[in-house]
Amino acid sequence: MYSFANDYSEGAHPRILAALMETNLEQNAGYSLDAHTEHAIEQIRQEIRCPRADVHILVGGTQTNTLAISSALRPHQAVIAAATGHINVHETGAIEACGHKVLTAEAPDGKLTPDRIRPILARHTDEHMVQPKMVYISNSTEIGTQYAKAELEALSQFCRRNGLYLFLDGARIGAALTSASNDLTMADFAALTDAFYIGGTKNGALFGEALVIINDALKQDFRFLIKQHGAMLAKGWLLGIQFEELFRDHLFYDLAAHANEMAVRLRAALIARGYTFAYPPQTNQLFPVFSNDEILLLEKNFLFHPDQAVDDSHTSIRLVTSWATTDESIDAFIRALDELKKASA
Amino acid sequence: MYSFANDYSEGAHPRILAALMETNLEQNAGYSLDAHTEHAIEQIRQEIRCPRADVHILVGGTQTNTLAISSALRPHQAVIAAATGHINVHETGAIEACGHKVLTAEAPDGKLTPDRIRPILARHTDEHMVQPKMVYISNSTEIGTQYAKAELEALSQFCRRNGLYLFLDGARIGAALTSASNDLTMADFAALTDAFYIGGTKNGALFGEALVIINDALKQDFRFLIKQHGAMLAKGWLLGIQFEELFRDHLFYDLAAHANEMAVRLRAALIARGYTFAYPPQTNQLFPVFSNDEILLLEKNFLFHPDQAVDDSHTSIRLVTSWATTDESIDAFIRALDELKKASA
Amino acid sequence: MYSFANDYSEGAHPRILAALMETNLEQNAGYSLDAHTEHAIEQIRQEIRCPRADVHILVGGTQTNTLAISSALRPHQAVIAAATGHINVHETGAIEACGHKVLTAEAPDGKLTPDRIRPILARHTDEHMVQPKMVYISNSTEIGTQYAKAELEALSQFCRRNGLYLFLDGARIGAALTSASNDLTMADFAALTDAFYIGGTKNGALFGEALVIINDALKQDFRFLIKQHGAMLAKGWLLGIQFEELFRDHLFYDLAAHANEMAVRLRAALIARGYTFAYPPQTNQLFPVFSNDEILLLEKNFLFHPDQAVDDSHTSIRLVTSWATTDESIDAFIRALDELKKASA
Amino acid sequence: MYSFANDYSEGAHPRILAALMETNLEQNAGYSLDAHTEHAIEQIRQEIRCPRADVHILVGGTQTNTLAISSALRPHQAVIAAATGHINVHETGAIEACGHKVLTAEAPDGKLTPDRIRPILARHTDEHMVQPKMVYISNSTEIGTQYAKAELEALSQFCRRNGLYLFLDGARIGAALTSASNDLTMADFAALTDAFYIGGTKNGALFGEALVIINDALKQDFRFLIKQHGAMLAKGWLLGIQFEELFRDHLFYDLAAHANEMAVRLRAALIARGYTFAYPPQTNQLFPVFSNDEILLLEKNFLFHPDQAVDDSHTSIRLVTSWATTDESIDAFIRALDELKKASA
Repeated sequence: MYSFANDYSEGAHPRILAALMETNLEQNAGYSLDAHTEHAIEQIRQEIRCPRADVHILVGGTQTNTLAISSALRPHQAVIAAATGHINVHETGAIEACGHKVLTAEAPDGKLTPDRIRPILARHTDEHMVQPKMVYISNSTEIGTQYAKAELEALSQFCRRNGLYLFLDGARIGAALTSASNDLTMADFAALTDAFYIGGTKNGALFGEALVIINDALKQDFRFLIKQHGAMLAKGWLLGIQFEELFRDHLFYDLAAHANEMAVRLRAALIARGYTFAYPPQTNQLFPVFSNDEILLLEKNFLFHPDQAVDDSHTSIRLVTSWATTDESIDAFIRALDELKKASA
Repeated sequence: MYSFANDYSEGAHPRILAALMETNLEQNAGYSLDAHTEHAIEQIRQEIRCPRADVHILVGGTQTNTLAISSALRPHQAVIAAATGHINVHETGAIEACGHKVLTAEAPDGKLTPDRIRPILARHTDEHMVQPKMVYISNSTEIGTQYAKAELEALSQFCRRNGLYLFLDGARIGAALTSASNDLTMADFAALTDAFYIGGTKNGALFGEALVIINDALKQDFRFLIKQHGAMLAKGWLLGIQFEELFRDHLFYDLAAHANEMAVRLRAALIARGYTFAYPPQTNQLFPVFSNDEILLLEKNFLFHPDQAVDDSHTSIRLVTSWATTDESIDAFIRALDELKKASA
Repeated sequence: MYSFANDYSEGAHPRILAALMETNLEQNAGYSLDAHTEHAIEQIRQEIRCPRADVHILVGGTQTNTLAISSALRPHQAVIAAATGHINVHETGAIEACGHKVLTAEAPDGKLTPDRIRPILARHTDEHMVQPKMVYISNSTEIGTQYAKAELEALSQFCRRNGLYLFLDGARIGAALTSASNDLTMADFAALTDAFYIGGTKNGALFGEALVIINDALKQDFRFLIKQHGAMLAKGWLLGIQFEELFRDHLFYDLAAHANEMAVRLRAALIARGYTFAYPPQTNQLFPVFSNDEILLLEKNFLFHPDQAVDDSHTSIRLVTSWATTDESIDAFIRALDELKKASA
Repeated sequence: MYSFANDYSEGAHPRILAALMETNLEQNAGYSLDAHTEHAIEQIRQEIRCPRADVHILVGGTQTNTLAISSALRPHQAVIAAATGHINVHETGAIEACGHKVLTAEAPDGKLTPDRIRPILARHTDEHMVQPKMVYISNSTEIGTQYAKAELEALSQFCRRNGLYLFLDGARIGAALTSASNDLTMADFAALTDAFYIGGTKNGALFGEALVIINDALKQDFRFLIKQHGAMLAKGWLLGIQFEELFRDHLFYDLAAHANEMAVRLRAALIARGYTFAYPPQTNQLFPVFSNDEILLLEKNFLFHPDQAVDDSHTSIRLVTSWATTDESIDAFIRALDELKKASA
C-alpha cells in the first residue's frame, strides 16, 4: 500500500536529520534566540533579497496563518479568502476563534483576483459590517493551481490601493516555485506581499514554516503573540537547524522540484490514458477524475483522498507527490492505470 | 420629510412612557431582580404556555443574538444562518468576535430549510472543520418574509434529529405573528425552538428584547454571561416595566397589527400601480422595485434605504411601517406614487 | 424600607423624563446619528474644553469600560488596575473575555499611584509576559475616595513617560467633581487622561455613559467596535436627549451635589455618634463600621450592602446617597442611629 | 561556558533520535492518527493504570495548558492558580487570550492548598464576578518544590467537593516523580486529578507533552480544539515515536532521576559551603542565594537566570540540571564555588 494522500507522510530529508544529530548535544539558547536560527534567518533574508524582513520560524501552518492574520487585524477587521482557502475550510475556525470573520469569494481555480475582491469591498461600507483589511491567498493553492507573476502583481497593486494587507500562505511555496509553469521567484513574494511563509513541513522538513514579515506595520511585538499562541518552541533551534539545511544550498528547491517531477510523470500518464482533471494540474497536487469503480480498484493498492463527486458515477481524487516519492511508486501507479483499462475492456 | 427607513424611528407607545413616569420614583432592586421584571417574565411565560422557560429581558438585538449564540456553543462550534441573516451581515462580526464561525446557506427568500442545511452538515465531517451546532433563523426575516408553521415544524424536527439547537431571532416577531399570512402562535415558538426572543425595540418599546430559553441545556449561569457582555442594565426594571405594559393586554399584538395594516395599505397601492417586489411582501417590510428616476423623486419627501440594483435602471428599496406610522403618511406616499405616474406620463 | 443600597435605585430626574416625553414622536435617525446626540456631544466638548474629543454615549458602565479598554489594546497587552477596580472584581471577567489580562496593584484607598504601578512595569520585561499598556482608574473610586488634582497630574505624567494610556472610569465622576474635597474640573480630565467617561446612570439619567476619547490613537473606527459589542442602541437619541438635558445648564452637577450633601449629613451624624469609616468618607459612598448587632437592627428599616468584616463582631457597610435621596430618609436613618444608642444603653 | 539556565538546552536523548532515524522513511498517517502514537498512548494508559484515559500528545507546554484549561471552561469561568503559576506569569496571557481570568493565591512555596483556595471561592459569589471552576497546579512547581501525596489528596478531595476541576501541569512531572522526597506515582495523578500532562520537552524529548484526560466531561471533541489552536502536528507520529521510546522501558524515569542526582550533588555542595535557598530544594531546580559579587564571578563561566533580590547585596539564582547534565559540569561548578570562597577569603 503506497500513499499519495499528502506530501507529509514521511519524516525529513536525511540531510536534515543528520544536521539534527550532529548538533544534538550542543547547548543552545531557547525560544529561537539561538545562533542556528539567526543564521537561517540571514539565509532567508538573502534568498528573498530583503535584509529588513522579520523572520519567525514556526512549527505548523494553521499556527502560522492564525498568528499572521490575527496579529495584523483589529477586532472589527476581517480577512478575505477564496472559498476554498485553507483558513476558511480546514483550520477548525482558528481565525474566527481569534475574533475575525473570514469573508469569502467563490474561486473555481482557488485564486483571488481584484475582480473577485471588489464586490466584497463594495458590500462592506459601514460600521454595521466587518471591515475587510487583509487578503489571504495560497501559492500553490489548496487545489494545486498557482499564481502567475502578472496575477500576483495585479493583486498586490489592488491591495495597496485599497489599504488591504496581502498575506500569502506558502505551505507549498516550494512546489509553486519549481513547477514548469512558474514565473515567480522567492524575492517576488517579498516584493509583492506584506507577509508570506515558506513551508518546510510539506517540503522535506520534520516541521517548520518560516513566516516572513515585510511590512513594518506588522512586525511590532510579534514574539509576544507567538508566545501567547503557544507557538514558541522551547528548543527553537530545531527549527533553525532545519531551515539552515534547506537553504544552505539548493536543497529546498531540489526537494520541491523532485515532487513536481513525480507529478509530471503521473500527469502525463493520466493524460495519455484520457483522464481529465478537476482543476488545472500545475504542481504536486493532481485531481484526476475516475469512475467510482476505478477508484475502488485503485484503493486496493494506494492511499489517497476523494475530492468531490463530478457526477453520479465519477469522482475526482487528490494525488499528492512529495520530496520522498519514488519512481517505483509512480511506476506502480501507472501499471495500476493500465490494469484499470484492462479491467474495463 | 417622512421616514419609512425603519420601525424604530420614534420613541415608545405613550402607554409605555406613562408606565415609566408612574413608577419613576419607586426604589427598585437593580440588575433585573425587581418585581416588575418578575411580573413581566410571568406574563411572557403564560403567553408562550411554558412555565419553565427562562426569560431575560435585554436591551438590544445584536446583544441578544450574541449572548444566545455564544453561550450555547463550545469554542469549535459554529452557527448556521441564511446568507442574509442579521448575524452574518449586520452585526459587525459579533459572533466571530466571540470565537464562532457563521456558516451560511444561500436563501433567496431569507429562510432556512432542511434542504439548505443538509449540504453544510455533509461538508463538516471531522476535526479539521468547525462543528455546526446551532441554526439561527429570523421571523419575520431580514427581507420581510415569514415562516409558515409547517416550515418551522420541519426545521425544528430536522434540528432535533441532527443535534442542532434552533434559535429564532424575533426582533420582528410581532410583525410575523400579526400578518395575514401567519399561522403560528407565540406558544409555537416555545414548542419548536430551543430559544427565541420577543422584540420590543421595533414594536413600540423604547428598547428591549425578551430572550426566552426553553432548552435546559442553554439556561445555566446565563446571568453571568449577560453581565460579562455588558448587557446587564443597572436599572433593569425599565425593561420589566415596558414588557409588563406590552403584555398587560394585547398591546404588543395591537402595535404590530397596526404596522402590518399600514404595510397592507402601501402594498395594495403599489400593486394597483403595477409595481413588483424584490421579495414576497408579507409583513411590515416591503421591497418594491422602482426606476432610479422615480427613486430620486420619492427621496424628495420620504426617507428610506435602497436595497439592491435590480437592473441598470431599477432598484429595490426598503419601506418599513411601524406602530407609529400614521394613515396620513401612507396617504402622502400614495399621492407621491400618483405623481410619479404623472411625471412619467 | 428605604434603600441606601446604591445610587441607581430610582428612574430619572423628572426633567429627563419630560424631555423624553416631549420628543417621543419625533422621527430620529437611529444608532446615535441624530441631532440630539450631536448637540449633546457639542455640549460635552464645551464642558471639557476639548473641541476635538470624540464622544460616544453608551448605555452602561461595563460596556463602556470593556469597549474603551479592548479597543485600545493589542492581543498581548494588559491593563493595570487597583485590586479593588470595578473591571477586576465586578464585571464578570469582561476584560479577560476580550482577551486581556488585568494586572492589579494593592491599593487600600482604591487609588493608583506611580509607586504602585512601577513594580508591575519592572516585572513585565519580555515576550513571555503580557505587556502593560493601559492604566485604569476610577474617580470617585469603588470605595468612595477620590483623586486630588496633584495625584492625577502625577499619574498622567507617569503614564505618558512610560507609554501607558490612562483611562478613567467616571461612573461616579459627578460625585467626585462636586465633593467638598475636590479640586479637579471636567476639563482637567480631558487634559490629563487619554479617555474617560461621564456617568449618567448613577447621576439621574435612566441610563447612559458618555465616553470621551481624547487621544487620537484611540479614536479610529470606534463605532465598529460599539456595534460589534452590541452596544449601539437602535434609538440612540434616547441617550443624546438625556445628556442634552444634563448639560443644558448645571443639572448634572446639581444632582451630584445633592447626593454629596445628603452624604455629608449622614457622615456628620455618624461621626458625631463616634462611628468610624473603613475608607475616607469623601463622596456619596460611605463605609461606616457597625457592630453586627447594630447591622441587624438597621436592616429592619433600611436596605444596604455589607462591605467587609472588620473584626469578629464588626462589619463595614456601604451607604450610598443619590440625586433622589430625600432629607426625610436621612432624618430617618439618623433617628435609627439614635435608637441604636438607646438599644445598647 | 556551561549552561544551568534550564533543562531544555540540548536536543534529545540519543535513543529518541535513533528511533526517529529508524522510522524516518515510513509512511505514516498524519495528525496523530498513526500506529506509533496509538502505541505510545497505550503505554501511557498502562503506566497510569487508567485504560479509559484520553491521551493527546502535544508539542509544547503553553499550548497544552491553554488547551486543557480553555476547553474545560465556559466563557464566564475562571481558573485558580498560585501567583507563581506558569499560566499566570510566563505564558503572555494565553489563558486570558482565550477569555478566562486567572484568579491567584499567594503561595510562597508555589503550591495550592484548600486553605489558599477557600477565600477565593468565598469572594466569588454571584454573577457580577467570574465563576471559579478549575484549579491549576504544577508538579514539580515553578520554584522546584513538589506535592506530597497527602497534599495532593487533600486538594483533590477539596476540588471534588466544590465542583472544581483539578488540572496538573506536569512539564516537570518526571523530576517530581523521581526526587528523594516524592511519595506519588504516575497512577496517583490519574486517580487524583481530572487532567494532567507528562512533560517530554524538559525530560529528554525534542519536544512533546502528553496530555492525559481522566474526567469524561473534559474529553468531548478535544481534537477539534487541538486543531483550532494550531496544535495538531501534521507529522504527529514524531510525538508518538518519542513517547514510545520514553515509555518502552524506564527511560522517562531514568532521565529524570539523572537530573535529580545532578541536583542532589549541587545541593550538597552548596549546603556544605553554607549557602541557603530561596525555596526548599526538592527537585532539579535549585534557587541558592549568592552575594551579587559572587554572581558576577559565577557568570564568567556559567549561564543561569537570576530569580529575585533577597536583600540589597544578595540575590537568588536558578540552577537547573537535566537528563544531559554531566558530572564534569557539576564538578566545574563546585570548583567555582571553592574559588568564590578563596576570592572572598
